[in-house]
Amino acid sequence: MKIVVIGATGTIGKAVVENLQDRHEVIKVGKSGGDYQVDIADETSIRTLFETIGEFDALVSATGDLAFAPLTEMTSEQWDMGLRSKLMGQINLVRHGLKYVRDRGSFTLTSGILSIDPILWGAAATTVNGALERFAVAAAIEAPRGVRINVVSPTVLTESWDKYGSFFPGETPVDAAKVAKAFQKSIEGAQTGKVIYLRG
Amino acid sequence: MKIVVIGATGTIGKAVVENLQDRHEVIKVGKSGGDYQVDIADETSIRTLFETIGEFDALVSATGDLAFAPLTEMTSEQWDMGLRSKLMGQINLVRHGLKYVRDRGSFTLTSGILSIDPILWGAAATTVNGALERFAVAAAIEAPRGVRINVVSPTVLTESWDKYGSFFPGETPVDAAKVAKAFQKSIEGAQTGKVIYLRG
Repeated sequence: MKIVVIGATGTIGKAVVENLQDRHEVIKVGKSGGDYQVDIADETSIRTLFETIGEFDALVSATGDLAFAPLTEMTSEQWDMGLRSKLMGQINLVRHGLKYVRDRGSFTLTSGILSIDPILWGAAATTVNGALERFAVAAAIEAPRGVRINVVSPTVLTESWDKYGSFFPGETPVDAAKVAKAFQKSIEGAQTGKVIYLRG
Repeated sequence: MKIVVIGATGTIGKAVVENLQDRHEVIKVGKSGGDYQVDIADETSIRTLFETIGEFDALVSATGDLAFAPLTEMTSEQWDMGLRSKLMGQINLVRHGLKYVRDRGSFTLTSGILSIDPILWGAAATTVNGALERFAVAAAIEAPRGVRINVVSPTVLTESWDKYGSFFPGETPVDAAKVAKAFQKSIEGAQTGKVIYLRG
């Protein structure tokens, strides 16, 4: 399969590329690194990426910015960033990518466990991750030509635990390599409209 | 209690006012009708409303625009409308209203059953309604001074069935008066961070 990995230079993206690259043609896309670049908060940038890459069998999105702040202090700009980047950025990858994905191809997006398990400072994250998970379920019933749409919802990565662990009291992190297997399941399997939750 | 009902001139809003008005001081807010007006898609309009109304004990939001269209045809403008109006409009009522709500007061927002039960043309509705439901759960754990935040998620109203029923094959509509009781439960009860689903 020809598989496009958006966010290929991030921790999850690298693990997904590592998992897939021996069996598939993997196209690595980053914000500044990778084979191609895209700013998912910019629809024109997304359109240009697809025009350049052309048809594909699967797209992985493991990217998107999001702000963390106390509910009473989070600014309108911080809310807007999460909606434009992590939420609509990934939704727009599906909307515009639908013209380029082959029959029975797939999209696999990334949300995060805060969708169902909120923490302090995480209201925007819970909102955006929850929105993405519901989007995948709804979009899957309308996807044409047997195209599948799933979302992977991981907890904090083991690789990021030193940086973020203190925000997640009592959480057990998950290895990026295990998260990558959830993407493999979505891409090489046959399910659609699924949220794949990953606990440590 | 002094209760602010946003969307007071709509079908749900009217039923909520009807339910509450004998026991409480109800302030009716509409887009063009009501005692006061607000455009929830405009943060300045929301701020002005709260400056005018001052402190309150409970806020009901039963409003918000949303677009319905096939997944492959829904425009960026249609996606944006749902995010600015029904989603961020209601979130901003909470964000800005937190400065005016009294101790142990409440916010009760409105999502919709498509959050968990998607239909064709409903991808934006499922996304936005799901986001609102997760927002309430996350915001509730951060709300100061015992303030409570819930969301009511009704199916199609009996009163709207002639207009929208054909989009919901096999659905049983629910009476607006029953939906109003869910708002009553949220306002006069003690729960927080709850999604109150209403089937017919």
